[in-house]
Amino acid sequence: MNFASDNTAGVAPEIMAALAHANNGFTLGYGNDEATRRVEKKFCALFERDVAVFLVPTGTVANALALAHVTPPWGAVLCHQNSHIAVDECGAPEFFGGGIKLLELPGDNGKIAADTLKARLGNKASWGPPHHVAPAAVSISQASESGTIYRVADIRALADIAHEHGAVLHMDGARFGNALVRLNVSAAEMTWKAGVDVLSFGATKCGAMAAEAVIFFDPKRAEGMSARRKRGGALLSKHRFIAAQMEAFLDGDLWLRLARHANSMADRLSDGLTKAGFAPVWPVEANEVFAALPVALCDKLQAAGAVFYRWDADNKGNVIVRLVTSFQTTVEEVDRFTTLVSAG
Amino acid sequence: MNFASDNTAGVAPEIMAALAHANNGFTLGYGNDEATRRVEKKFCALFERDVAVFLVPTGTVANALALAHVTPPWGAVLCHQNSHIAVDECGAPEFFGGGIKLLELPGDNGKIAADTLKARLGNKASWGPPHHVAPAAVSISQASESGTIYRVADIRALADIAHEHGAVLHMDGARFGNALVRLNVSAAEMTWKAGVDVLSFGATKCGAMAAEAVIFFDPKRAEGMSARRKRGGALLSKHRFIAAQMEAFLDGDLWLRLARHANSMADRLSDGLTKAGFAPVWPVEANEVFAALPVALCDKLQAAGAVFYRWDADNKGNVIVRLVTSFQTTVEEVDRFTTLVSAG
Amino acid sequence: MNFASDNTAGVAPEIMAALAHANNGFTLGYGNDEATRRVEKKFCALFERDVAVFLVPTGTVANALALAHVTPPWGAVLCHQNSHIAVDECGAPEFFGGGIKLLELPGDNGKIAADTLKARLGNKASWGPPHHVAPAAVSISQASESGTIYRVADIRALADIAHEHGAVLHMDGARFGNALVRLNVSAAEMTWKAGVDVLSFGATKCGAMAAEAVIFFDPKRAEGMSARRKRGGALLSKHRFIAAQMEAFLDGDLWLRLARHANSMADRLSDGLTKAGFAPVWPVEANEVFAALPVALCDKLQAAGAVFYRWDADNKGNVIVRLVTSFQTTVEEVDRFTTLVSAG
Amino acid sequence: MNFASDNTAGVAPEIMAALAHANNGFTLGYGNDEATRRVEKKFCALFERDVAVFLVPTGTVANALALAHVTPPWGAVLCHQNSHIAVDECGAPEFFGGGIKLLELPGDNGKIAADTLKARLGNKASWGPPHHVAPAAVSISQASESGTIYRVADIRALADIAHEHGAVLHMDGARFGNALVRLNVSAAEMTWKAGVDVLSFGATKCGAMAAEAVIFFDPKRAEGMSARRKRGGALLSKHRFIAAQMEAFLDGDLWLRLARHANSMADRLSDGLTKAGFAPVWPVEANEVFAALPVALCDKLQAAGAVFYRWDADNKGNVIVRLVTSFQTTVEEVDRFTTLVSAG
Repeated sequence: MNFASDNTAGVAPEIMAALAHANNGFTLGYGNDEATRRVEKKFCALFERDVAVFLVPTGTVANALALAHVTPPWGAVLCHQNSHIAVDECGAPEFFGGGIKLLELPGDNGKIAADTLKARLGNKASWGPPHHVAPAAVSISQASESGTIYRVADIRALADIAHEHGAVLHMDGARFGNALVRLNVSAAEMTWKAGVDVLSFGATKCGAMAAEAVIFFDPKRAEGMSARRKRGGALLSKHRFIAAQMEAFLDGDLWLRLARHANSMADRLSDGLTKAGFAPVWPVEANEVFAALPVALCDKLQAAGAVFYRWDADNKGNVIVRLVTSFQTTVEEVDRFTTLVSAG
Repeated sequence: MNFASDNTAGVAPEIMAALAHANNGFTLGYGNDEATRRVEKKFCALFERDVAVFLVPTGTVANALALAHVTPPWGAVLCHQNSHIAVDECGAPEFFGGGIKLLELPGDNGKIAADTLKARLGNKASWGPPHHVAPAAVSISQASESGTIYRVADIRALADIAHEHGAVLHMDGARFGNALVRLNVSAAEMTWKAGVDVLSFGATKCGAMAAEAVIFFDPKRAEGMSARRKRGGALLSKHRFIAAQMEAFLDGDLWLRLARHANSMADRLSDGLTKAGFAPVWPVEANEVFAALPVALCDKLQAAGAVFYRWDADNKGNVIVRLVTSFQTTVEEVDRFTTLVSAG
Repeated sequence: MNFASDNTAGVAPEIMAALAHANNGFTLGYGNDEATRRVEKKFCALFERDVAVFLVPTGTVANALALAHVTPPWGAVLCHQNSHIAVDECGAPEFFGGGIKLLELPGDNGKIAADTLKARLGNKASWGPPHHVAPAAVSISQASESGTIYRVADIRALADIAHEHGAVLHMDGARFGNALVRLNVSAAEMTWKAGVDVLSFGATKCGAMAAEAVIFFDPKRAEGMSARRKRGGALLSKHRFIAAQMEAFLDGDLWLRLARHANSMADRLSDGLTKAGFAPVWPVEANEVFAALPVALCDKLQAAGAVFYRWDADNKGNVIVRLVTSFQTTVEEVDRFTTLVSAG
Repeated sequence: MNFASDNTAGVAPEIMAALAHANNGFTLGYGNDEATRRVEKKFCALFERDVAVFLVPTGTVANALALAHVTPPWGAVLCHQNSHIAVDECGAPEFFGGGIKLLELPGDNGKIAADTLKARLGNKASWGPPHHVAPAAVSISQASESGTIYRVADIRALADIAHEHGAVLHMDGARFGNALVRLNVSAAEMTWKAGVDVLSFGATKCGAMAAEAVIFFDPKRAEGMSARRKRGGALLSKHRFIAAQMEAFLDGDLWLRLARHANSMADRLSDGLTKAGFAPVWPVEANEVFAALPVALCDKLQAAGAVFYRWDADNKGNVIVRLVTSFQTTVEEVDRFTTLVSAG
């Protein structure tokens, strides 16, 4: 019953097998290998266009490199006030960007509303040199930190507003697959066709060991990124092994199967909790469930071996718990948990 | 016959096995796991003292984080003019250090001589605020980029000079094991007992997949490093897998066996080349051999499938080639190569 | 009728005279001069203790250097959401601090309430490595951007909370004199005796040409600042001229006289506006007056030659105008303005 | 007899008068004033083309902002090993540039030879991503730190080599006027017509109080510089006073007259030293004279009140002294000094 995070899960067997398979003979380092070329082609096919791809070992460095690359030091990144980049990366975007500013926006369900963005960007007097930073990027998380997702029309609306004000749209896709399989659209439709300019494509949380990709939908925008990644310490020397992870992740739509499983476990958890009288506090749209539970129940669950984070508190004295499912979550775990909840 | 780099080799079987073994159940991320605790203990045992350990995925980020942590932005790092940090990391130390300055020193055989360091640091008028940067660190590579090694007394001498001028001694140990098994001293003797303050301990080039450690011999010096690593994008979420690599690497002295093999292959290569009339241009003290070969011979060797870099040119029109051996290099490869060289 | 900003005023005659007087013969540069020594002594006397003093040419660089010096790159500076450092310095603190984060707090009348600070810092789960930045500094503006001032007890309360959480208290004193003469306390009482650790002491807005000082109340905290100022481009070569400005500013309490005049002009403006039915929207406690005027009246005033900024809008369709007085503002200007307002 | 530096001189009377004249009434800050517009026009006229002009208070910040603006963080600036940017600015270019690398080149008489630059840039294997920084700028000092000057053809040759390798040519013109009046060419001929892309135009050392200008010869290259200057803390609020200095400096060719006087004093010093048997060690081409004097003579001169720096030592036990003249140096001072030298 481990619902602490999707990064408490291990590595999907297919990816472990790919690593073993890649460990064969000698191969040039730093991305000068065939597997890396194949991954690049796979991403071009997935997104139905030429894209520039940079594999990196952590989601934090993916976001930080991506944002630094599209934001001048005097630029601002507008993001949700609970976003991972604003709250959980210890200032990595600010560091990689040479002192860029993250401007936090409020928003229900972990998402930025178009009107909020429009109002903030539309306040012309607050933007621009010499006194004020300039809007450079809007960053959205798909799925969001609250386990919710933006619809394609939402993304389009935010992209249009961003572009109108000279900013690009970045998507933090640490849980990209979880969002995609819900929307039942293509990866292209959820990204560049809706106006996304740069994407942090996550594999680690979804079943890989340590593999993320920064994707520029306009490859020209990637100029200089090779140097930025290297001096950011994020170019792996035995690069074939990160490429092998990503190749296996994408191969035969493994990533979508893994995401569908994680999501279905979240749904099952949501159903069980709802039946027990604890309907989730936010829509369950990816692989995260947030529910308000009495403190005593939390204590009991954790004493019984359930692992999860106490995220927040509601105004009735309950704990809002975060329950994250993964490719590795089992029906048995979920049912054991909801049974315990039902027992109260 | 792949002698391009030790990072063209794969991963030692014992380390692959450890990764598979680690992929079992759920484990908290970001280093909050038992394997990480065990690795920390192993390093304390190896170095015979309390040390602070930070696992990171690349040698570049290990060096950059280590140097940034011991150097204020207005500090200088003195290093060999051919050192990896000065030449091959695309400015990573300067970036991580907020604009620190790397001051390059000349030196035979890829090493800094004590007299050179003494003279440079002793020129008081060139140091210190407000106009000049201040010496903050001396960085040496053990083994060096030329495949040579510092003796313990050399390290001691450099450390004493550095300390006398208020600078710490950093060791870039991307090939730490290769150096250590040559010297036949303890890891403690080659480091803190000789005055080393901070070490980039390399496992990747020596048989791991992507695992390095920054080691502070005085744990108090590590204050703030946890945040620095995270915002540097170098804290792995599924941290158990980097810990598993390092644990297997250290376990039962696997790392020393791997290093001994690589070194012995370099020796065999050196012997064969010497017999063929191409004695190495620098002492072969680790797992790298540099030899001056006629252009035509280089062409022939590469046509026959040998992989290596043309490093430099000597003043007789020859190519100085770099031949790197690894744990994966075989006797057959070496012999095939030297036979081809002998045949001319 | 120029109320645009106190930096639209010129230079006090006494300071111009001091500059002319300083322009005599040869003097060593970069602060190695007698006038600089005298300024340092004057500040020690003013603050009734040993302080470390660094003269710099702009308020932005004073704030940025001060904050960068007390905040590690992974630190946060908590400040009011309308503060100059957050809004009007184009990201200077973030740049000088190597990517520090400014966390904006709401607050009535341009001031941070102790309870707000306490709540934000008390939310332990949101602070600290590896995932979150750490609180390093709280920055308050005295006088604030809304023309209000903190009482000594307010400062003490904020300092205590900051210190309790390991943060220092910085005061942006671009209008330090304007605040001080209102409170009728000593400079020591308004700063270090109330817990302020580092101060940006402003002279430019108050009658100098281009002269600010960073003051560390604990001189030990200033270690490294000499290098930081130089590499920040803020060490003047003909330093005697910035020292001369500051010396004349402090001499014979000129600065207090200048501040008193500016404040009294603000009071007169406030009185006139109140009589005309436009009482200021925030307390007038320094040299700034904010009033809500009908758009048509604003247009008329500006057509008549009044210069001021339209700061904001209230919810009745009025413009909130900002009117700043300075040492140079005359009774005639103020009366002409309020007469125009009264005429409607 | 003060020959310590041209920044030990004061301010030219015409510039002091201009400051007094500018101190009249109210003027908008931050460069929104008429004097700033006039200065911009004067620079366009001086350089016979549209240029972008940014006034800043120090030479260090002028160089740092200029270089940071034309160099990506992974770029290198090639410069002379004794250049001010490499040696005397405490790492300011590295800081402002986000960790750029300064690569130092040797060169006689303080100048970079075209062949040296060609050889360094031509070594293709040492440049470019992912492992190596990329050449972004070549910086030359006109006049150099050794008091020598580049001829127009020298500049053209360096510019051509730089441009061929994708780098721009920056000129550190802290002593621009001193060089220009020697060459007897136009300012345009010594800069953009010879291939200079960006110039730090110095006024402070030449008679102003604190005024430098960054000049982009292609105004499009200046995009973003307004924000960079502000967040670099180098935008003066009472900007009219820096504009007034520069306007007076340029007005009626005051700057050329001041430079001619300083140079003629250097010539007189050179003549006197030569007659006394101490011919300068480098050509005297601007306002600096370097001569090798016996230690005892140095002691005697300083005891007699002469102020100068002991720059270096020659290999005969002499001190190489640096003697800098300025607009303020008098014939009497020079003659008194050379008389003392002649007396031995």
